[in-house]
Amino acid sequence: MKVAVVGASGYTGVELLRLLVRHPEVEISAITSRQYEGQNIAQVFPSLADLISLPCCEVDIAKIGSEADFVFTALPHKTAMAVVPGFLEQGCRVIDLSADYRLKDVAVYEQWYQEHTSPELLDEAVYGLVELYRDEISSARLVANPGCYPTSVALAVAPLLKNGLIDHRSLVIDSKSGTSGAGRSAKTGSLFCEVNEGFKAYSVGCHRHTPEIEQTLSALAGEAVMVNFTPHLLPVNRGILSTCYAQLSQNVTQGQLVALYAEMYGDQPFVRIHPGGQLPNVAFLQGSNYADIGFVVDERTGRVIVVSAIDNLVKGAAGQAVQNMNVMAGFVETLGLDVVPLFP
Amino acid sequence: MKVAVVGASGYTGVELLRLLVRHPEVEISAITSRQYEGQNIAQVFPSLADLISLPCCEVDIAKIGSEADFVFTALPHKTAMAVVPGFLEQGCRVIDLSADYRLKDVAVYEQWYQEHTSPELLDEAVYGLVELYRDEISSARLVANPGCYPTSVALAVAPLLKNGLIDHRSLVIDSKSGTSGAGRSAKTGSLFCEVNEGFKAYSVGCHRHTPEIEQTLSALAGEAVMVNFTPHLLPVNRGILSTCYAQLSQNVTQGQLVALYAEMYGDQPFVRIHPGGQLPNVAFLQGSNYADIGFVVDERTGRVIVVSAIDNLVKGAAGQAVQNMNVMAGFVETLGLDVVPLFP
Amino acid sequence: MKVAVVGASGYTGVELLRLLVRHPEVEISAITSRQYEGQNIAQVFPSLADLISLPCCEVDIAKIGSEADFVFTALPHKTAMAVVPGFLEQGCRVIDLSADYRLKDVAVYEQWYQEHTSPELLDEAVYGLVELYRDEISSARLVANPGCYPTSVALAVAPLLKNGLIDHRSLVIDSKSGTSGAGRSAKTGSLFCEVNEGFKAYSVGCHRHTPEIEQTLSALAGEAVMVNFTPHLLPVNRGILSTCYAQLSQNVTQGQLVALYAEMYGDQPFVRIHPGGQLPNVAFLQGSNYADIGFVVDERTGRVIVVSAIDNLVKGAAGQAVQNMNVMAGFVETLGLDVVPLFP
Amino acid sequence: MKVAVVGASGYTGVELLRLLVRHPEVEISAITSRQYEGQNIAQVFPSLADLISLPCCEVDIAKIGSEADFVFTALPHKTAMAVVPGFLEQGCRVIDLSADYRLKDVAVYEQWYQEHTSPELLDEAVYGLVELYRDEISSARLVANPGCYPTSVALAVAPLLKNGLIDHRSLVIDSKSGTSGAGRSAKTGSLFCEVNEGFKAYSVGCHRHTPEIEQTLSALAGEAVMVNFTPHLLPVNRGILSTCYAQLSQNVTQGQLVALYAEMYGDQPFVRIHPGGQLPNVAFLQGSNYADIGFVVDERTGRVIVVSAIDNLVKGAAGQAVQNMNVMAGFVETLGLDVVPLFP
Repeated sequence: MKVAVVGASGYTGVELLRLLVRHPEVEISAITSRQYEGQNIAQVFPSLADLISLPCCEVDIAKIGSEADFVFTALPHKTAMAVVPGFLEQGCRVIDLSADYRLKDVAVYEQWYQEHTSPELLDEAVYGLVELYRDEISSARLVANPGCYPTSVALAVAPLLKNGLIDHRSLVIDSKSGTSGAGRSAKTGSLFCEVNEGFKAYSVGCHRHTPEIEQTLSALAGEAVMVNFTPHLLPVNRGILSTCYAQLSQNVTQGQLVALYAEMYGDQPFVRIHPGGQLPNVAFLQGSNYADIGFVVDERTGRVIVVSAIDNLVKGAAGQAVQNMNVMAGFVETLGLDVVPLFP
Repeated sequence: MKVAVVGASGYTGVELLRLLVRHPEVEISAITSRQYEGQNIAQVFPSLADLISLPCCEVDIAKIGSEADFVFTALPHKTAMAVVPGFLEQGCRVIDLSADYRLKDVAVYEQWYQEHTSPELLDEAVYGLVELYRDEISSARLVANPGCYPTSVALAVAPLLKNGLIDHRSLVIDSKSGTSGAGRSAKTGSLFCEVNEGFKAYSVGCHRHTPEIEQTLSALAGEAVMVNFTPHLLPVNRGILSTCYAQLSQNVTQGQLVALYAEMYGDQPFVRIHPGGQLPNVAFLQGSNYADIGFVVDERTGRVIVVSAIDNLVKGAAGQAVQNMNVMAGFVETLGLDVVPLFP
Repeated sequence: MKVAVVGASGYTGVELLRLLVRHPEVEISAITSRQYEGQNIAQVFPSLADLISLPCCEVDIAKIGSEADFVFTALPHKTAMAVVPGFLEQGCRVIDLSADYRLKDVAVYEQWYQEHTSPELLDEAVYGLVELYRDEISSARLVANPGCYPTSVALAVAPLLKNGLIDHRSLVIDSKSGTSGAGRSAKTGSLFCEVNEGFKAYSVGCHRHTPEIEQTLSALAGEAVMVNFTPHLLPVNRGILSTCYAQLSQNVTQGQLVALYAEMYGDQPFVRIHPGGQLPNVAFLQGSNYADIGFVVDERTGRVIVVSAIDNLVKGAAGQAVQNMNVMAGFVETLGLDVVPLFP
Repeated sequence: MKVAVVGASGYTGVELLRLLVRHPEVEISAITSRQYEGQNIAQVFPSLADLISLPCCEVDIAKIGSEADFVFTALPHKTAMAVVPGFLEQGCRVIDLSADYRLKDVAVYEQWYQEHTSPELLDEAVYGLVELYRDEISSARLVANPGCYPTSVALAVAPLLKNGLIDHRSLVIDSKSGTSGAGRSAKTGSLFCEVNEGFKAYSVGCHRHTPEIEQTLSALAGEAVMVNFTPHLLPVNRGILSTCYAQLSQNVTQGQLVALYAEMYGDQPFVRIHPGGQLPNVAFLQGSNYADIGFVVDERTGRVIVVSAIDNLVKGAAGQAVQNMNVMAGFVETLGLDVVPLFP
């Protein structure tokens, strides 16, 4: 199967290449990068030396589209929707890693981002959170790969919302992301010396992942959910950890939650509920597609605290995209994703 | 003025020395360390070479007490209360950096820690959060230096609670601490490779700073406050950032909060409310005694999010202890604490 | 094929497990750990959750030996030679990751380490640097897996020494290692706050890898080589970078060196000479078994500077051990080692 | 005394401000930044909030020069020499932190940098390494503040060269610098994710600090010295560690070296030779103006290994500049520089 990676020189792009070069059913037909056009990708990312040898080319939709079965678009929002319709017209199936096709309501999209140039595709696009929407994904032509924060949050609280165990108005979500989430563009705020030995909250009350989180949580709850979502910048390369707080709307024990989460995630190959009540640590899933989830019932305050961890570049981006491709292509879901986490 | 540092070989101990060697009114009369007894402290901590030359000695209360006006006890809880009464009997004024004299209610102490061996001192001990209890501290014989997390939380939400602006049952406190907060003892969990590139929550629902936080917040609110407090371990040396969430109990604007915080902290030399709504970052106060505070009113959810940052070893420990000493001794409060933050 | 990992709870141990759980021809029959005896290894290292479920057991040579074809001993020196002879007697083939069987001359071993308890095995033991000793390794019963620093140094300068291009008396080797090289034992010097934001040289003039380096380099040169080897501690989890300096004994151009290194390493699957003169960076081979090598001829001073990088836990330990196993067992040399480096 | 900081928004600039705001004899009259013109510097660097409140202005030589006694130019090379002559004409004394006036030989400057636009000042400019040139500095009108690497190297080997103890043709200098040395401009290579968990050599054989190092070492040796200088990029904010190797030209013991270094540096307030043979670590001088030096005589190879450490932003830049100002103005040399190193 031939796949193209459009936008290969960002951290999501190189992560897609890391996974795809080892995928047994995939041949990479083209990669694009405006910044490095003409350069071999193995020179741009020496980590890939001896593993791939392809020049970065420009985004020629007709040429790339005619040679690829699947296209991954790893572009910034707005840029993505400028090319996705073209690839679909060429008969490709598309997994878009931007935010452009994630929100179902064009008005919400336009309120948080900008004008949408292909709103007619929003209905067709399937939200690619495999653990919730596997069936719809399998036959999709266009999959909107979920955002990193929304993935970590949705998996964390899905069992609680689906079973009506919490008062969703009390939901507080405190998330922390590694710096690769800020992308590879050269900004002062992403410099080593600005991030290292630092820690801060950012976009408090206004982060663009808020409506995406609320859309998924509302679908799970069966009514409109509105949350406080506060992202923070962690001085690590990879990893998101989300700490979610909610008032329990009924008495639940720790044991009952274990059973509940096991029921919902027992068959999901990439969700791990650590034994013995261990809480997740982003150090334990580096490079892998796992989502690790733990929880504590706090009887003093009647709240449940759920903690989830993912590698933002894998389950939060490129890994989930390959997982979507596997489901869409009818491959075993874990194909090419059997990466054991690197620790330490 | 002669001061002794009892327990000089932990991170709090060396931080006390860093500040005291430059303090213009202080002479260090003795330092103790069981682990390094007989060794010169400048060999234990080469950062202090050429700045101090004193051997670590054992804890001889009579000898040390007779030669010091002030004693800083930088010992683990339980060990601290084994020596504090002795130093008081020797006529010293004591600033205890452990948890042993922070909680007013001996039953609460014994529930979260262990049996208390000098409960008769709890009434006399003054909780050393200068911004709230300056007058009581000035005449105190024994000051219980606040915990690092409780300092960051109390300063963050004091203006809100004091003015009755929030529903305190909705308080959620998500804190993140640098690794020096875990101390200098050789534990696997504190090894570089276990912490670096990692991030986790710990002691969820059961951290011992919880009752200390609740004691201060209850005093501010005038009624019993119970909170969710969740600490996390940050892969940085120094810094605590606390993100506090609460439901507003009345309409307040961002501007009104600025005025309220300015009113409460305008005269406090170590509290900074950044101009222009900038939120704090632990990178901006390394080595200094500042507490930086910022806040956002989220009109969508009716919540206020307050973010505070301190250097856990300074305002969260040694710096606050020196600030307490200055107040107790009648010095200018900032004496010896005019350290400009190191950035980057 | 059944393999046992003796000493599974150090960083080398968990790294062996990371590689072996995915190895298509291997079944892990037993793992040992004194510290965690009885505990499931997936609870000790949550990174391995859902991937392996085995209890740590004690080192019962008879039992483990009778059930395993290959035994990896990932124990400290001295402890290793206490068990290796027993496993050999049980008919196992052994890959020993300690220093105990690396030095051919028992007197040198005893000068740098301690008394050797099974010197009779030194002759038989094969030094497991596959790129140099592949044939001997394939039929070996006991392989001494090379040290991390010696691996990085030997691969860097082998082509120069073998071709007599440098004056070996001028060799200066300045190496820098990530902190996982210091092991997982709880020592103050390995604590996060002692290593982070720090950098130092250590064991200057007396590091135990010196005789191992000199043994390999002497074999390559055909005469006794003596070097200055200075290790440094890097605040990263993984990676060794060695910068090697030597006086050229004849005129050589950069291009001639490219040809020379290509000739020696062109067929070696795990050695990469980056195109275009790019020098290696430990960031580009995290988790992989690659050794990356670059070099610069400095015409001003007549020296050549060779820079090599490896992941100390992979090519410097566990990966090289699996590579040795593959060669010994007649598998494809890269089996189970097709890990694409993680970047960033 | 009034001082201006021209180029205040880089890491050297903010470091100058950190030191100058506390200097008891200095008033900051103006600060410039093209990038942040009109913004208050305390908003650009929140670390300085409550400590200084000045807008960044443009480089108006006449205005700034007429109001300042001393001018620090913390600009890139080439940009510096465009303004330095003007400030001198205004009657200011200038401490230039760029490379523009460090090299005495204009031909050498033009070979490694570019055309020099004020070569007539090279003779007058004094190289501001206080430990070597204190007298010349005291009366200088223009001081060329040394580079960070050259400072660490010159202090390390000065006693050896001055006393003719080494064969200077054998000198190999392996240096490692924290990332703040790369400056604050937004380059991909300085991004957190590119530097963190990485380590590399760069500019091998061609770094621009090479001729500056050779100029100082030649002056010390009394003949032309040529060295191999290899810089590396460390994933820490601050610190340079240089490991220097040289063949001893006569028998010297460790004890004799201790005496030699003590003789040369005993009266220098900012050079520390650690007791007991401890080698330096960049962790032990963060934020301070110290240079820590240690050495080992390796009898096996007849070489001496000298290791020096400085904080590249302090002794390697801003601290040394303030030290120069103190000497020029006749202040106590340590005034405003009594910063105790931050550890951890």
